[in-house]
Amino acid sequence: MLAVLCGEKHPPDMHPIEQEATVRYTRADGLAEALRGADALFVYDFLSTAVPDAWHAADRLRWLHIASAGVDPVLFPGLRDSDVVLTNSRGVFDDSIAEYVLGVILAFAKDFARSVRLQDNREWRHRESERIAGRHALVVGTGPIGRAIARLLRAAGMRVSGAGRRARDGDPDFGTVHASAELNGHLSAFDFVVVVAPLTERTKGMFDAEAFAAMRPDARFVNVGRGELVVTDDLVEALRAGSIAGAALDVFDTEPLPADSPLWTMDNVFVSPHMSGDFIGWRNALVEVFADNFRRWRAGEPLRNVVDKRLGYVPSAD
Amino acid sequence: MLAVLCGEKHPPDMHPIEQEATVRYTRADGLAEALRGADALFVYDFLSTAVPDAWHAADRLRWLHIASAGVDPVLFPGLRDSDVVLTNSRGVFDDSIAEYVLGVILAFAKDFARSVRLQDNREWRHRESERIAGRHALVVGTGPIGRAIARLLRAAGMRVSGAGRRARDGDPDFGTVHASAELNGHLSAFDFVVVVAPLTERTKGMFDAEAFAAMRPDARFVNVGRGELVVTDDLVEALRAGSIAGAALDVFDTEPLPADSPLWTMDNVFVSPHMSGDFIGWRNALVEVFADNFRRWRAGEPLRNVVDKRLGYVPSAD
Repeated sequence: MLAVLCGEKHPPDMHPIEQEATVRYTRADGLAEALRGADALFVYDFLSTAVPDAWHAADRLRWLHIASAGVDPVLFPGLRDSDVVLTNSRGVFDDSIAEYVLGVILAFAKDFARSVRLQDNREWRHRESERIAGRHALVVGTGPIGRAIARLLRAAGMRVSGAGRRARDGDPDFGTVHASAELNGHLSAFDFVVVVAPLTERTKGMFDAEAFAAMRPDARFVNVGRGELVVTDDLVEALRAGSIAGAALDVFDTEPLPADSPLWTMDNVFVSPHMSGDFIGWRNALVEVFADNFRRWRAGEPLRNVVDKRLGYVPSAD
Repeated sequence: MLAVLCGEKHPPDMHPIEQEATVRYTRADGLAEALRGADALFVYDFLSTAVPDAWHAADRLRWLHIASAGVDPVLFPGLRDSDVVLTNSRGVFDDSIAEYVLGVILAFAKDFARSVRLQDNREWRHRESERIAGRHALVVGTGPIGRAIARLLRAAGMRVSGAGRRARDGDPDFGTVHASAELNGHLSAFDFVVVVAPLTERTKGMFDAEAFAAMRPDARFVNVGRGELVVTDDLVEALRAGSIAGAALDVFDTEPLPADSPLWTMDNVFVSPHMSGDFIGWRNALVEVFADNFRRWRAGEPLRNVVDKRLGYVPSAD
């Protein structure tokens, strides 16, 4: 018995799974009922916060799979302290997010947003632009998405370092990895700071006034992780005060970004609607990852992408 | 005696040259007078069309250097048929233009222009986006700028082919090079067509209605070469009719682009003001190339970047 938490649209490509199990599709308001008697839960509506409220009804659940890389929406104490295995969609978004990050870095360097606005005014105004070759990016988050970002930025000629749980040198993708706990002491070295860390108790709000003050006034901040990694008011203030030069934000602590957020109208901010990883075909790819784990589960084989519920992400092999 | 054709601003870093020669800085209206008795002409105002009109006064000119890669503004019959050596600024713009091209390709794939316009409306609208990995770009123009573009697009995961004077395989940067004369038969294979060919009698207007009809309806056209490589009315019609999906244009047959051009307001067109190569420091880099040639000229050494005036560009070693 499989429960699937989804919105109005069911996940695609579920027919083979429906041959193997009884599948109950439900929206948030029917989740408790659907969980009763379910062995597995597929959280396809990956931004839903409905799981904690319905958790009391999970009377025989053994496995929860989420159609995202970040597991923060379902990593509440009830699940953390249970024996339910949690798996995620590690791998699906890596290269797509990496392209997005390279794109926003080039858009900053080449002043594309201003070109769009000048074009809308039919205004011809030549500017000089920045090179990205040789410029130094810090990628905060050394999981597979961060690694894909690092490889692509390097391929495009940038220098790249990483930030992760423990400091080290000689990493194949990052070279130097700084310890996130000591990050502020290193931030002034970077032209671009790209955040893709998992959201955990350790990382929540790590980009605060102190961090932004440690960055260079000509540096840009890119967030493709989670909005709650950032203290939004501190970011707005840093952008207003010129302690940093710009931000490209694909994620926000409230989504959709409220209409009265000052971020919409700041001309050094690029806002996109939580889409950096969502390439054409991503929904099929997400179901493919689930279907592979479902087959393993039915066969009694080890699942892939098992989250360490204490850490809040799938630990790397290294 | 050196004449320098410039605008209001003189080129930077000329002091060492002023120690070695009498330098006459002039605007277009004083060019004839400045040319009289001059041994060399540095066309720093590289879009100026003043040289043909003043040519009658060039009574002892032996060398003309232009602060651009394209030499079309000075390659008129009087110069072509003379013994005056023509050199250009080959190499200065290569990597900067390559970054620009990768940037506009990513901007198309990730729908950045639309994100900017949605942001200005405070509108949160999720879209799926394209991957660039594995997509196929054609670079028309196999000089150093085209090669830099090919290398960078390949590094970012794209497939790349070239188009040049003669068809060949196994090119180190392009793999396959198609013959420009037979280009229309190949255009349907490409997701992105990037034009950076020199403007010559052979290439003028090469992108016409027939070429756009041969492209795929989902293909994008990128012009960082010269506006006159394109029949602009045919491009506008192709964009309107949907025979191609979009265009990023940094160059135009009339610059600045006139306010009544339909290109300004087409939402599948990205307009930028002839700036793709102009990185911060480009003016100094241009003078550096000239100064190096000036030193060679004074020392009687062979000049670098000598244009084949029959071909209209500096021939490659290969």
